[in-house]
Amino acid sequence: MDTDHFNKKKIINDPVYGFISLPFDLIFDIIEHPYFQRLRRIKQLGLTHLVYPGALHTRFHHALGAMHLTLKAIEVIRSKGHRITKQEEKATALGILLHDIGHGPFSHALEYSIVKGITHESLSKAFMKSLNEEFKGKLDLAIRIFADQYPEKPFLHQLISSQLDMDRLDYLKRDSFFTGVSEGVINSDRIISMLNVKDGNLCVEAKGIYSVEKFIIARRLMYWQVYLHKTVLSAENLLVRILKRAKALSNQGENLFATEALAYFLNSSIGPKELEVRQEALKQFAKLDDFDITASIKEWVNHSDPILSSLCQSLLERKLYKITLQNQAFSAKEKGRTKEKLLKIGLDQNDLEYFTFADSITNNAYQPKADKINLLFKDGSVKDIAIASDQLNIRVLSESVKKHFLCYPKQSMVNNLAKRLS
Amino acid sequence: MDTDHFNKKKIINDPVYGFISLPFDLIFDIIEHPYFQRLRRIKQLGLTHLVYPGALHTRFHHALGAMHLTLKAIEVIRSKGHRITKQEEKATALGILLHDIGHGPFSHALEYSIVKGITHESLSKAFMKSLNEEFKGKLDLAIRIFADQYPEKPFLHQLISSQLDMDRLDYLKRDSFFTGVSEGVINSDRIISMLNVKDGNLCVEAKGIYSVEKFIIARRLMYWQVYLHKTVLSAENLLVRILKRAKALSNQGENLFATEALAYFLNSSIGPKELEVRQEALKQFAKLDDFDITASIKEWVNHSDPILSSLCQSLLERKLYKITLQNQAFSAKEKGRTKEKLLKIGLDQNDLEYFTFADSITNNAYQPKADKINLLFKDGSVKDIAIASDQLNIRVLSESVKKHFLCYPKQSMVNNLAKRLS
Amino acid sequence: MDTDHFNKKKIINDPVYGFISLPFDLIFDIIEHPYFQRLRRIKQLGLTHLVYPGALHTRFHHALGAMHLTLKAIEVIRSKGHRITKQEEKATALGILLHDIGHGPFSHALEYSIVKGITHESLSKAFMKSLNEEFKGKLDLAIRIFADQYPEKPFLHQLISSQLDMDRLDYLKRDSFFTGVSEGVINSDRIISMLNVKDGNLCVEAKGIYSVEKFIIARRLMYWQVYLHKTVLSAENLLVRILKRAKALSNQGENLFATEALAYFLNSSIGPKELEVRQEALKQFAKLDDFDITASIKEWVNHSDPILSSLCQSLLERKLYKITLQNQAFSAKEKGRTKEKLLKIGLDQNDLEYFTFADSITNNAYQPKADKINLLFKDGSVKDIAIASDQLNIRVLSESVKKHFLCYPKQSMVNNLAKRLS
Amino acid sequence: MDTDHFNKKKIINDPVYGFISLPFDLIFDIIEHPYFQRLRRIKQLGLTHLVYPGALHTRFHHALGAMHLTLKAIEVIRSKGHRITKQEEKATALGILLHDIGHGPFSHALEYSIVKGITHESLSKAFMKSLNEEFKGKLDLAIRIFADQYPEKPFLHQLISSQLDMDRLDYLKRDSFFTGVSEGVINSDRIISMLNVKDGNLCVEAKGIYSVEKFIIARRLMYWQVYLHKTVLSAENLLVRILKRAKALSNQGENLFATEALAYFLNSSIGPKELEVRQEALKQFAKLDDFDITASIKEWVNHSDPILSSLCQSLLERKLYKITLQNQAFSAKEKGRTKEKLLKIGLDQNDLEYFTFADSITNNAYQPKADKINLLFKDGSVKDIAIASDQLNIRVLSESVKKHFLCYPKQSMVNNLAKRLS
Repeated sequence: MDTDHFNKKKIINDPVYGFISLPFDLIFDIIEHPYFQRLRRIKQLGLTHLVYPGALHTRFHHALGAMHLTLKAIEVIRSKGHRITKQEEKATALGILLHDIGHGPFSHALEYSIVKGITHESLSKAFMKSLNEEFKGKLDLAIRIFADQYPEKPFLHQLISSQLDMDRLDYLKRDSFFTGVSEGVINSDRIISMLNVKDGNLCVEAKGIYSVEKFIIARRLMYWQVYLHKTVLSAENLLVRILKRAKALSNQGENLFATEALAYFLNSSIGPKELEVRQEALKQFAKLDDFDITASIKEWVNHSDPILSSLCQSLLERKLYKITLQNQAFSAKEKGRTKEKLLKIGLDQNDLEYFTFADSITNNAYQPKADKINLLFKDGSVKDIAIASDQLNIRVLSESVKKHFLCYPKQSMVNNLAKRLS
Repeated sequence: MDTDHFNKKKIINDPVYGFISLPFDLIFDIIEHPYFQRLRRIKQLGLTHLVYPGALHTRFHHALGAMHLTLKAIEVIRSKGHRITKQEEKATALGILLHDIGHGPFSHALEYSIVKGITHESLSKAFMKSLNEEFKGKLDLAIRIFADQYPEKPFLHQLISSQLDMDRLDYLKRDSFFTGVSEGVINSDRIISMLNVKDGNLCVEAKGIYSVEKFIIARRLMYWQVYLHKTVLSAENLLVRILKRAKALSNQGENLFATEALAYFLNSSIGPKELEVRQEALKQFAKLDDFDITASIKEWVNHSDPILSSLCQSLLERKLYKITLQNQAFSAKEKGRTKEKLLKIGLDQNDLEYFTFADSITNNAYQPKADKINLLFKDGSVKDIAIASDQLNIRVLSESVKKHFLCYPKQSMVNNLAKRLS
Repeated sequence: MDTDHFNKKKIINDPVYGFISLPFDLIFDIIEHPYFQRLRRIKQLGLTHLVYPGALHTRFHHALGAMHLTLKAIEVIRSKGHRITKQEEKATALGILLHDIGHGPFSHALEYSIVKGITHESLSKAFMKSLNEEFKGKLDLAIRIFADQYPEKPFLHQLISSQLDMDRLDYLKRDSFFTGVSEGVINSDRIISMLNVKDGNLCVEAKGIYSVEKFIIARRLMYWQVYLHKTVLSAENLLVRILKRAKALSNQGENLFATEALAYFLNSSIGPKELEVRQEALKQFAKLDDFDITASIKEWVNHSDPILSSLCQSLLERKLYKITLQNQAFSAKEKGRTKEKLLKIGLDQNDLEYFTFADSITNNAYQPKADKINLLFKDGSVKDIAIASDQLNIRVLSESVKKHFLCYPKQSMVNNLAKRLS
Repeated sequence: MDTDHFNKKKIINDPVYGFISLPFDLIFDIIEHPYFQRLRRIKQLGLTHLVYPGALHTRFHHALGAMHLTLKAIEVIRSKGHRITKQEEKATALGILLHDIGHGPFSHALEYSIVKGITHESLSKAFMKSLNEEFKGKLDLAIRIFADQYPEKPFLHQLISSQLDMDRLDYLKRDSFFTGVSEGVINSDRIISMLNVKDGNLCVEAKGIYSVEKFIIARRLMYWQVYLHKTVLSAENLLVRILKRAKALSNQGENLFATEALAYFLNSSIGPKELEVRQEALKQFAKLDDFDITASIKEWVNHSDPILSSLCQSLLERKLYKITLQNQAFSAKEKGRTKEKLLKIGLDQNDLEYFTFADSITNNAYQPKADKINLLFKDGSVKDIAIASDQLNIRVLSESVKKHFLCYPKQSMVNNLAKRLS
């Protein structure tokens, strides 16, 4: 380890909270590690910045923010008489700091195209294991808490992962801040000040009910206004198709411009098993970030394959698919509408899917069947917020909402493709 | 032009101002142009995010913000009885929208390494000329105002470029917002509400004196805390040396990984003349953004040249030069201190400059000799703020401040190089 | 009219919006009028500052804020192609500026005690009529629009009074700002930017649905957290009983300390008819503000009547009633609980009501049966938001919620009374 | 003491900091005391709300805020290895909580008119002494720290009173928040995070230099924009003259409307000695707040004395003196200008001073001769910021600035007086 760096008791400027302090040397050292520095080059919200130009914040920043909130929550819970040791505090902070370390660039796009079947959760565990070896077991407790294998104090895991965890609190606040969508602003200070523990489990004091309701509603609004915004959906689906095409061409032996790490995944078939077994696979994955993908797409604009090059140009110049959302599934007739036009300009039947397709998305603001958000009353009793909230029927929010969408090319996209096909 | 896009009367979410409206179709079309979309991939503050992790905002966003303020300023000036036609309004908005379009990625680093002697101002003009051809002369007036060749109403140019222009107002506010350095927060609303015109020139009503003072002071604080932050200086100087090394290797015939556009500049010698004369040069420049540079640096980590690879690794893992700032120039002895060590591990005398060097920076918060910030008094008289401000001696701020700095490698950087050299 | 005042094009600093401009001379003159200046001395939220110490903002400030939003809304609607003349703009601005001018201090408390049966709406009309005479008919159109007697453009009235009027927009934002209850923060800019007019009626463009939902929810949360906060309820009910007691004593011929205006209402029996008929009554009412009431209560602490003096001391020292809220009505047994104790220390059966009582409150976040919030779709169709919103069942919010409450004295209040009774 | 109140671990909503926690029972009990509750009825900024309508915040709120910052500062200093006991923490918190308890309504106006020669500092001590008796010595340490008689840890006193104390930090931030004058916004979090202790004295770590500079500059800007705003000066001088006139009339045996407490001070001659010696005087003072003064002024509008009544009407209707500020003293000729006019309408020569007068004000942003703001460097050395700051010459700020002002009546004020005199 480099020892000549400056004071480890560092303070980081954060426009969301003002300051984030790093209270433990080990945390400083983990942040300095290349695995963690990589997160500086992975945007938290993928292509959302094409709609909300401020949304360029990274997973690096989010991980620090979630850790910051976790440390505040621990302070609050302690002040209410619950014992948490320094070791537990550090381990929980590490757990949340690393909770997203397995995220690749444009996670969902990657998962649907070149590294199939791999979840970022399992990758996070793999990275943590690898770091634990390097740091000689110092992450043992962090890993146990992260994996919910610390029955002594389950609330520590719940701070990292539950329906009211510090991950969600940070990302709602942060995404709202950087997008400028004030609908998502939540009062994280207030919610945290209301946290408590009952029988080892995290809960919220009853008087915090409105803040929690607001949190659930804000989350739902952020889903519709940001996370599932139709233009974002359109952009991400375009990216999936670009990567699928690149993979297909690679499989056919085509040699595409790519950084070493991206080439590794384009040219081989890496699934969950490989990433666990092959050291090399994890190492290459650790090099992959937004820059590999975007720089390659910029080059592919000039590739001879008309499909790949026209899709790439569309993304770079922000000429995305048109997209329609509705409550019902699309009929065959609706789905067929633009196909005709595409076939006419010479697109192969098998390649239609690159330019027009239907799919669906689902949103649950609150999932009562999973874990619950529990309210703690003055008499010591605990109730699920969906039952306790008699004013707003939160049960309404519990019903999952499904939307169908249909993507199809703008005329300019068709023209562009036609020119390249001819 | 693509005509099937949605409503051109677009509103863009901006966390800084809430909303930015695009009031003219031509502005919408310019924003859609690939030249302008490119700015989405160029960070406003280069490597500053290595110190302030939120500072990832782009020149795209800044250009929109500066245009937004300009439109507000025009509204204010009009409300005070000065006539500004719709055409002038549109042209001024276009002028400021495009004022930075010539910026390349990491501008200063590029200028000091691979595209020497080219200023972004001259490039902006070249881009505007090219766009004007494409848009059939619709940018004529915008170009005249931008170039200060509109003597009818000089204040329109001054909104784009002067010591109190909308460019500065936006970047101070925006940089302050995204870094989280609240010292730079300025009240742009208040300043704009105080703008007025006297004899064709922009001025500020006298009661706005404190806001202007605050603006000058905020600018100065932002210089020391952000723009000239020593860690940022260190990172940018590291980038310059990486690019210089890559260029040197290319000149020696070495084939480096690079996108097409970057390769173009690495392999040829493009200066101001070439960019004006050769169409190809401008076209390639228009493809260059942060992603070309960063993706290449990521690959160069594995290059066989020990200097290039170790510098690249340092940047990616954020192991930057140590840096010392002081008021006096550094003595030969001070500068020599780490040279010994570097020579000992086998570094060539001629390559020392890649790892240790001294330089200086200068900061002027207010430059009274250039244009002035003029205050307009109720009796119609106009005074330079540096003279009018009797409370704070703004003249003090007018003196330029020069700082000398010395960069030298951390021990870890030396070790890394040593390993690669051996 | 005073003519030597400074520039009427005034700008007022407002922490909520930054600035409020006064664009018309007549508006400036109305604001200068003693009737309007009186609003500087009437807090917007009565006794709420006993719970939220920042909530000291006045009806003066709110009226300016609502006017500010109205002018912005008019600008937006105009920009969408609807014609609104300068005269209509001024009249609508005047209408909303004066919409609350009839409010007395602690309106509800007064209405339930010393000026029974008078609503602030009818008083506002009386004040506007009186001002219109003084300003020689210049308020004619403002009064018509305020009274919804301008069938040419009903949306102008709807900006002043409807379920999405500028009154509500301002007070939610302002009350949220000064209380610090961030749950009530709404994005007034966004909502206003989505306003439009269809068939003469105000509506919101469909893409603004989430903002409107957020507005309805924020309103509901503000009700429970601020407007109907149980401690605020307790304080306001205490004030009602103080004023009732003072009135009762006055009716018995007791001479109480009071300002002239307060004495006028304590000593006579003024109802709706008197205020309309008697010029004197309106004139005296126009002098009444928070200071008359509070200064008198401070003196009444020393009055010989044990009930009046002990109630006043309780309010001043913030020893309020205890209060219990529940969904069901309170049983006779529950209501009787503290009565015994009070009778024992010598309180007369008829005076029990000053110290313990039950009542109920009701809250509707959205009232679909009154006017509706209409959404305007791209195809030109218009739908009630309660029907259009398929994600959140706004109909749930439409059901009115009724809560019962029971107030009874703290032990310290009982002791204080006992001492004074003996 | 009342024991049936709710949970003493109270959280108070504050729009400035989000939340203020009350960590000690004794602090809760002091806040409940009528002496402290009185501060709810004393505005922090007197008549400033006549210019900045949001500036209605009270000394109650400021005292809580300053305590909040003090507790945060103590936490920071502790985290840097300096021992502070729970007792010392509580005492310092109490000290700052009570530092302004001696303030009367419109302090300066009172001091110049009806309670001459009394400073709020000496009154604060008297109140603290009285509270200490009631609380049986529990405030002993708080009083010692407040009076700088705790040589063990002088920095505790410096948190309460010095050039960078928590009093100033809170009032700058709070006044800036409620006035909406963003020029005064300071980053209290950052400054506090930089606090440290050297040789028992409070200092700021060197890297905090810009934040401290910003603080000094912000303070200076707030002086000119808010505290010494010319309209505020005009209003406060008007109030002084109203109270002087009321006192003069009382001395002549005139019976004025007044609350008991105000009457006590109008009818007797209370100076510093009386307030220390006579228990009754302190007791009456403890009853005096903004409501006594304002309610009386409202009644005095109808008084038969033309001077008193016309001055009162001017204040209530906000028809203030005209005021001119300049760097030089006013000449006799300038001062005489309106006198003629006033004599002509029948005003007595001796009463001219009620309507026109000259005076001066002084402002020091930083007073290097008093205590200093010390910077702590990494090598352990300590330097005065005025010397250390080589960029901005803070010495310039150290020079005191003196302004002369002349007040004289508007024409409407003259007319009003003339009518009453005739």
